[in-house]
Amino acid sequence: MFEIRVKTSKRVESRDITDEIISAVQGKSGRILHIYTPHTTCGIVINEDADPHVMEDIMEALDRMVPRNYPYTHMEGNADAHIKSILTGCSVTVPFSDEAPALGTWQGIFLMEFDGPRERKVFITLV
Amino acid sequence: MFEIRVKTSKRVESRDITDEIISAVQGKSGRILHIYTPHTTCGIVINEDADPHVMEDIMEALDRMVPRNYPYTHMEGNADAHIKSILTGCSVTVPFSDEAPALGTWQGIFLMEFDGPRERKVFITLV
Amino acid sequence: MFEIRVKTSKRVESRDITDEIISAVQGKSGRILHIYTPHTTCGIVINEDADPHVMEDIMEALDRMVPRNYPYTHMEGNADAHIKSILTGCSVTVPFSDEAPALGTWQGIFLMEFDGPRERKVFITLV
Repeated sequence: MFEIRVKTSKRVESRDITDEIISAVQGKSGRILHIYTPHTTCGIVINEDADPHVMEDIMEALDRMVPRNYPYTHMEGNADAHIKSILTGCSVTVPFSDEAPALGTWQGIFLMEFDGPRERKVFITLV
Repeated sequence: MFEIRVKTSKRVESRDITDEIISAVQGKSGRILHIYTPHTTCGIVINEDADPHVMEDIMEALDRMVPRNYPYTHMEGNADAHIKSILTGCSVTVPFSDEAPALGTWQGIFLMEFDGPRERKVFITLV
Repeated sequence: MFEIRVKTSKRVESRDITDEIISAVQGKSGRILHIYTPHTTCGIVINEDADPHVMEDIMEALDRMVPRNYPYTHMEGNADAHIKSILTGCSVTVPFSDEAPALGTWQGIFLMEFDGPRERKVFITLV
């Protein structure tokens, strides 16, 4: 298990971490690559890393589905971030071959910050 | 693969199963831990296990996104539970090190019951 | 890693791929089975494969949560498909035992097409 740190700069932000992950596993071997964040108010997802508008639309859709202001019972002001984390999940698993994750042409791996800015840990495991 | 059973007591309920899982894998070794439920109307998620209000807000948000009463085509009265199961997923994968899952400080593993009360199976696999 | 191809015939469609997957891994051994699609506008999920109304309700609920027509910033007309892909995820992991995935009685594995018709790749990895 390797660990990388990701510093986010806004409350809500998608951070492309594909390059950091590819660097971390370079020259290694395995069959599947697991990317995990040990936090409860952010997520890890895979989607398009070509047009940044895709991630904008995804973040905006999550905001619409899970409004920030609502009479939540959790009183820390970040209940929306916990709910979004459930919808995205906190990990992804990617097939691994030829010393790299077998991502599709348009796929990138993103840390989804829902309650930043913070420094987030990401655990990378190759099996 | 180990199996544990979880008895739920309400139609909709989040059940913290972190301790059962940690006990089941104690003393074992592996790199990733996979938790899976073989049902179609419940889910497995990871999120905060400190303040129970977090899970209340998550369940309430899922109810708002997926109303129980709606002209669904599936006639068994639990279409909402199937849809919620898609949103949460039926498994999680966690890095494993030092004979325990590498959960974050605030993370717990939950069975999300969406169509209880029932007895649910949970499969635990260490790779 | 094996690869199978799935041809979809509509813009939005759920395709049961359970039989193709079971055939692909027959006689093989491993502990977990990973099913992955390298695309950004479809998903892979597990849910009921007995009553097809369940998948109809799931697709209709995703349409309601993520409308096709909305002032999205991504201009290719498929922003909704990217968002739905985030909600479902692009992979599932299933325990593997006795040379087959340990699916529950009602569980099947589905490719969720959100921007078809297309030919989709599915990567199958046994660990």
